[in-house]
Amino acid sequence: MSLVVVGSLAFDNIETPFGRADDVLGGAASYFSLAASVLTSVQLVAVVGADMPEEYLDLLRQRGVDLSGLQRIPDGKTFRWAGRYEYDMNVAHTLDTQLNVFADFKPNLPESYRQAEYVYLANILPSLQLGVIEQISRPRFVGLDSMNFWIGNPETRADMAPVIERVDAVFMNDAEIRQYTGSYNLFEAARQLLTQGPRVVLMKKGEHGAVAVSNEGIFVVAAYPLETVKDPTGAGDSFAGGFMGRLAEAGDTSWEGIKRAMVFGSVVASFAVEDFGVAGLLRMRREQIEERFETLRQYTAFEALAESPVS
Amino acid sequence: MSLVVVGSLAFDNIETPFGRADDVLGGAASYFSLAASVLTSVQLVAVVGADMPEEYLDLLRQRGVDLSGLQRIPDGKTFRWAGRYEYDMNVAHTLDTQLNVFADFKPNLPESYRQAEYVYLANILPSLQLGVIEQISRPRFVGLDSMNFWIGNPETRADMAPVIERVDAVFMNDAEIRQYTGSYNLFEAARQLLTQGPRVVLMKKGEHGAVAVSNEGIFVVAAYPLETVKDPTGAGDSFAGGFMGRLAEAGDTSWEGIKRAMVFGSVVASFAVEDFGVAGLLRMRREQIEERFETLRQYTAFEALAESPVS
Repeated sequence: MSLVVVGSLAFDNIETPFGRADDVLGGAASYFSLAASVLTSVQLVAVVGADMPEEYLDLLRQRGVDLSGLQRIPDGKTFRWAGRYEYDMNVAHTLDTQLNVFADFKPNLPESYRQAEYVYLANILPSLQLGVIEQISRPRFVGLDSMNFWIGNPETRADMAPVIERVDAVFMNDAEIRQYTGSYNLFEAARQLLTQGPRVVLMKKGEHGAVAVSNEGIFVVAAYPLETVKDPTGAGDSFAGGFMGRLAEAGDTSWEGIKRAMVFGSVVASFAVEDFGVAGLLRMRREQIEERFETLRQYTAFEALAESPVS
Repeated sequence: MSLVVVGSLAFDNIETPFGRADDVLGGAASYFSLAASVLTSVQLVAVVGADMPEEYLDLLRQRGVDLSGLQRIPDGKTFRWAGRYEYDMNVAHTLDTQLNVFADFKPNLPESYRQAEYVYLANILPSLQLGVIEQISRPRFVGLDSMNFWIGNPETRADMAPVIERVDAVFMNDAEIRQYTGSYNLFEAARQLLTQGPRVVLMKKGEHGAVAVSNEGIFVVAAYPLETVKDPTGAGDSFAGGFMGRLAEAGDTSWEGIKRAMVFGSVVASFAVEDFGVAGLLRMRREQIEERFETLRQYTAFEALAESPVS
């Protein structure tokens, strides 16, 4: 089934202890689309200026990403982000943000997108996220990303509640869920969020993996163990892309389906962080995802006590 | 099989955002012994002053902990530690340390301890840890804890290598393994440590669980999800107690046995952090460990792709 994503395309400047990359393709919707399009067909809604080179858009087209929802502002400049990571790469230090055409972005979905069953609302103004949901006739599973920026501002924070009420999954990192709920304990915080509408809360913990909390249960997935991590930019959106892409591919939104989709998310994010920008995702092939899925299963599985001869 | 532990008994003063506890029983060997003694018989080597009340020692005796290796210094004072945790309870802020009788501790094992097959060297001077190994005639599995304090001092750091060479498992947290190996990536760091002698490196990640790296494979265990965490003091030693206690109980040091012992460690640590000091461990019952073992299995297990009807 096809999967609609609404979010940013950007130029990124990235510095990590392992090198730097300048003016590379970035933005939540880029990472998400490249992550998900290995698994399912992706329809993108975003905005760029005249400065976005065709060769960057070709990276998306080559993966079959539908760009008919991409707005181009002829006299505008594309969103830019610059960030730096120290050795503790769990924290990005934003050096510069230039919203440019993204500041006036009004997502308008082409008719061909409106029957989509799977929708991912990347980090844009909560009021715009709500507008997107309203343009989809019968969404089956909507994933929502959010950010400390909207949580910290009382006005945009107030706009978040009606969005959260209408989505199936909320993606937040540790700090965001604590900030939004005011509860330090992550499991208590997730349960509080569940009472507000979503079926599942997906807590992203960077190099420590992710945890899903729902009324159906808890599922903890490890990050895929890597000996090389070069650039964590886009890890969260790649995780979401792997997750939503798998849901759409399998058409399975059962709790078992959600667990597996979490593992896909974790594995897909591992490809993203192994190289700068989207380079790791561009090289990722479907069969590699399945290989790492199985490896991660071996790294985390253990037998029940009853199966053991010794207890 | 019996399990020898060498480490500290202490008085702790603990402050967390959820309350405080003063002059409570603490020290690595207390947590370890109370954690492991639910699973196997524990023989303790430690030192206390005249100020250690019998009622504290009775807590250990009631669990069957053998105290014949406990030295008492009639004119001495017991080791004291005071620490505070902020909301981010992964980091302890040490407010005060008084080594007292622990400063002159020379572990001397009673004859009845020297046939032990399982040994845990808690955080004491590396040169003393080596002395303990030499007093055990034929150890089958030796676990070693270490600490930033010894790694940071060139002299004691030099003493660590001959100990690491002779143990089976090294327990370190993220910061310690990075500091000791000089490698930021944890998997690279663990592989480097493996070349120095141990069979397995056990990386403790606090609320994010633990990872075992050996030449036989990698195993990632989640922390047991808790809605209440009151005091993380002793979590690492409780993890080690659950791990070593299970190994000794099952007599199974295969890679499968090590995986299960990791899960025992994670579960036992969850009881420790639910209450102040050793209170959580004192209430822990064997059947509760098995319940949480099974729950954690459910929280982390997922099916192989080949088993799925959808892929």
